[in-house]
Amino acid sequence: MALNQARRIGREAILLLLSDQPDKELTRLNEDNWQACLGKVGSMEAHKVVAAIETAAKKNGLIKTDVYRESHALYHAIMEALQGVTRGQVQLGSVHRTVGLTFAILRGNPYENNEEGEWMAVSLYGTIGAPVKGSEHEAIGLGINHI
Amino acid sequence: MALNQARRIGREAILLLLSDQPDKELTRLNEDNWQACLGKVGSMEAHKVVAAIETAAKKNGLIKTDVYRESHALYHAIMEALQGVTRGQVQLGSVHRTVGLTFAILRGNPYENNEEGEWMAVSLYGTIGAPVKGSEHEAIGLGINHI
Amino acid sequence: MALNQARRIGREAILLLLSDQPDKELTRLNEDNWQACLGKVGSMEAHKVVAAIETAAKKNGLIKTDVYRESHALYHAIMEALQGVTRGQVQLGSVHRTVGLTFAILRGNPYENNEEGEWMAVSLYGTIGAPVKGSEHEAIGLGINHI
Amino acid sequence: MALNQARRIGREAILLLLSDQPDKELTRLNEDNWQACLGKVGSMEAHKVVAAIETAAKKNGLIKTDVYRESHALYHAIMEALQGVTRGQVQLGSVHRTVGLTFAILRGNPYENNEEGEWMAVSLYGTIGAPVKGSEHEAIGLGINHI
Amino acid sequence: MALNQARRIGREAILLLLSDQPDKELTRLNEDNWQACLGKVGSMEAHKVVAAIETAAKKNGLIKTDVYRESHALYHAIMEALQGVTRGQVQLGSVHRTVGLTFAILRGNPYENNEEGEWMAVSLYGTIGAPVKGSEHEAIGLGINHI
Amino acid sequence: MALNQARRIGREAILLLLSDQPDKELTRLNEDNWQACLGKVGSMEAHKVVAAIETAAKKNGLIKTDVYRESHALYHAIMEALQGVTRGQVQLGSVHRTVGLTFAILRGNPYENNEEGEWMAVSLYGTIGAPVKGSEHEAIGLGINHI
Repeated sequence: MALNQARRIGREAILLLLSDQPDKELTRLNEDNWQACLGKVGSMEAHKVVAAIETAAKKNGLIKTDVYRESHALYHAIMEALQGVTRGQVQLGSVHRTVGLTFAILRGNPYENNEEGEWMAVSLYGTIGAPVKGSEHEAIGLGINHI
Repeated sequence: MALNQARRIGREAILLLLSDQPDKELTRLNEDNWQACLGKVGSMEAHKVVAAIETAAKKNGLIKTDVYRESHALYHAIMEALQGVTRGQVQLGSVHRTVGLTFAILRGNPYENNEEGEWMAVSLYGTIGAPVKGSEHEAIGLGINHI
Repeated sequence: MALNQARRIGREAILLLLSDQPDKELTRLNEDNWQACLGKVGSMEAHKVVAAIETAAKKNGLIKTDVYRESHALYHAIMEALQGVTRGQVQLGSVHRTVGLTFAILRGNPYENNEEGEWMAVSLYGTIGAPVKGSEHEAIGLGINHI
Repeated sequence: MALNQARRIGREAILLLLSDQPDKELTRLNEDNWQACLGKVGSMEAHKVVAAIETAAKKNGLIKTDVYRESHALYHAIMEALQGVTRGQVQLGSVHRTVGLTFAILRGNPYENNEEGEWMAVSLYGTIGAPVKGSEHEAIGLGINHI
Repeated sequence: MALNQARRIGREAILLLLSDQPDKELTRLNEDNWQACLGKVGSMEAHKVVAAIETAAKKNGLIKTDVYRESHALYHAIMEALQGVTRGQVQLGSVHRTVGLTFAILRGNPYENNEEGEWMAVSLYGTIGAPVKGSEHEAIGLGINHI
Repeated sequence: MALNQARRIGREAILLLLSDQPDKELTRLNEDNWQACLGKVGSMEAHKVVAAIETAAKKNGLIKTDVYRESHALYHAIMEALQGVTRGQVQLGSVHRTVGLTFAILRGNPYENNEEGEWMAVSLYGTIGAPVKGSEHEAIGLGINHI
C-alpha cells in the first residue's frame, strides 16, 4: 500500500502551483503519467471557486462529465483544499474576505501498488484577506481523494 | 501595504519543506533576511505537534521565550496550519488517525512597507492516515500571523 | 429517566420519513399520542430549509407561534438535523451544492417518566449534491430537543 | 447518472438498522446484490467507534484489507456518519458524553448507470448523552462515499 | 414574547462573574427571583469543565438530578458557553492549551410573558492559554437555553 | 508575562458594553491609558457586523488604516468574538437568524511586562434569534489579539 516516493501527488500538485515555469512542469508531469491542469480564480464567493475548479477539471478531461462518482471525488478534494485556505469556516464574502487563487488538479496513482488505482489532488495557492488591495496574506490548501 | 512578490513568506515556507536540499535553502533564506528553522514530528496527538513546533521555534530563537505575544502569534499560526492538515476537525488519534510531518517556521517581513513589521509562517507537510503502515496520503498546511 | 423503548421519538421520526405509506403512519402516530407532520423542501439556501420546517410546525400546531421557547427548541433541533445532512459546514449554495429533502416533525414524551415532559424530533431525508440533475447522493439528519 | 429509486443505499442502510428483523433484512439485501453487515459499539471514545466499524467492514469482506483506497473511502463515510450523531464536534468523552450505537455498512451500486461503480454507506443509530444511565436521547448518522 | 429589559439573564450571569462582590450580587439575584450559583474550575480537559458545572448546578438545586430534560438543557448551555471560550474547536489539552475559569449559572424567566417559563444561562470567564504560567489571555462565554 | 490584574482588557471591554453609563466608562478607560470605542450594529449578514466594527476602529483611530498588520489583528479578534455570539457556525441569515449587537473595541497593554506591547479586545453583546420581533435571546462574544 506504500506511497511511491517518486510519485507524491500532493507534493507535485503544490510544486506545480509554485513553479516559475508552470508550462514546463505540466509537460514533465504529463510525461510522468499524470493528468494535470492549472487555473486561476478570484472571488468573494466560495461557490465560484468550487465551480471554477470543477469546470477546469471537466474541460481538461480530468474527470468524466457524465459520471457522478468522479464529480463526487473532485468535490470533496476541493472542499478539503478550501479548508486549508479558509482555516475554520469555509466562508469568504459572508465573513468579509476575498481570495485570489491559482489552482492545480492532478490525477494518477501515487502508490506503489497498481490496485490503489487513480487518485486526485487539488491544490490552491494565493492570497486571502479583506476586500481592500494589499490587505491580505498568502494561503494554501491541498485535498486528496481516491477517484 | 502590498505583498513584496520577492518575499512571499508562505511560498518560501512551503518550498523549504518540499526542497530536496533543505540545508542549502535554509542558508539562502538566512541570507535573504529570514529567520527560519525546520523540524519533524510524528504523532497521534495534536498537542504533541503543537509542542514540537513551539519547542523548535524557541530553541532556534524564532520567538522570545519570555514574551507571551510571540508565543500567541506562533500558536495561532500553528493552529491554522493544522487545519489544512486535518481538514475539518483538529483531531488525530481521537478520530483514529495519525500524522508524520515535517514543519518549517519562517519569520520576517513579507510586505513592501517596513511598517508591516515581522510576520511568521508555519508550514506543515507529510502524511495523514490510519495507524497502519501505508494507509495514508499527503497533507499540507500553512498558517501566517503578524508577530 | 430511561427512554421508553416503545416510544423512540427519533426512530419514529425517521421511519415516518422512509415509509411507503406516510399517511397511514401519521394516523398511527397520532393514535399513539404523538403530534406529527410531514413536508418537503428543495433549496440551495439553508435558511429556506429552516423556514419551511418552522412554517410547517406552526401551521400544524406542533409549536405555539407566540411562545419563543417553542421556536427556540425547534430551531436547535433543525440545526442539529441539518448537520447530519451537511456533515461539516451548514452550507448549501455557498459551497455549490443543493438539497431535495422531505422532513418530519414529532412531538411527545419518549421517556418512561412523565416528568420528562415533551420533546421534539426533526428528521430530514433526501439528496444532496451539485446543482446538476443526478449529481447527488442521499443524506439524513436527526435533531432532538426538549420543548 | 440518476439514483435508482429501487436501490437507495442510504435508505436501505438505515432501515436495516431500525428493523425488528435485521437477519431477514440482511438476507434480502444480499439477494438484492448488496454486501452488508451489522454491528454494535458503545464508547466514550470516538476512535473506538471508528475502529469497530473498520474492523467489521474488513472481517465481513466489505473492504479489502490491503488496498488503502477502500479504507480511505470507508473512513470518510464513517466520519460523515459521526457528524450526524455528534452534531457539531466529533467528540464524545472529551466533552463529557458517551454513545451506544448500532451500525450498518452497505456496499453496492445505487445508480442506474453501471459506470457509477460501487458506493458505500455507513449508518449509525443509537443514543448519545451524559455518562449517566438514562441521561440520553437518540441520534442517527449516515455517510455515503464512492469506493 | 419580548425580553424583559429588567431581567436580562445573560447580562446578569456575566455581571455576577465579573463582580467584585459576588456574594452581595448573589443575594440581590435571589431577591430578584433568580436561582443562581458560582464556581471555579481549572483544567486542560474540557470534560472536567463540563462536569464541574453540572455538579455545581445539581448541588445548588438549579437542576433536578433525576430529570434528564434539565440536564439536557444545561449541557447545551455549557457547550455554547465553551464555544465562546475556545473559539473554533471545543478542545483544550488536545490542542495544547489550558483554562482557568469562574462560572455562573442562572435560572429564571427573562421574558415579559409568563408562558416563556424558565430559562438557564451559563457564563464563563477566565483565562486560556499555553500550559505555562502567564502565557494566557482572557476568554468569555455565554450559553442560554430554555429548560 | 503575567496579566496585570488591574488591567484586564477583556473584562474592561465587556463591562464597558454592559455599563449603564458608557460615556463615563469611556472617559475612565481613556484616563487609564486605554484606547476605546463603542458602536452598534444589527444585521442578518455577518460581513456587515465585521465591516461595522472595522469602520469604527478606523474612524476612532484604534487601528492605522494603512498598515495591514493592524487590520489583520482586528479581523481575527472580531471573528473570535463572533464565535461566542454564533456558537457553532459563523452564520446569521444563511441559517435564518439575525443579531442586534453593541460592540466595544479596546487597545492597550494588559500585561505587567512592557515588552508585551499592545493588545486589542473586541467584545459583542446583544441578541440573536429568528427574524421575528421578540424571538431572540442574549449572546456575548470576546476576541483578544496582540497587535
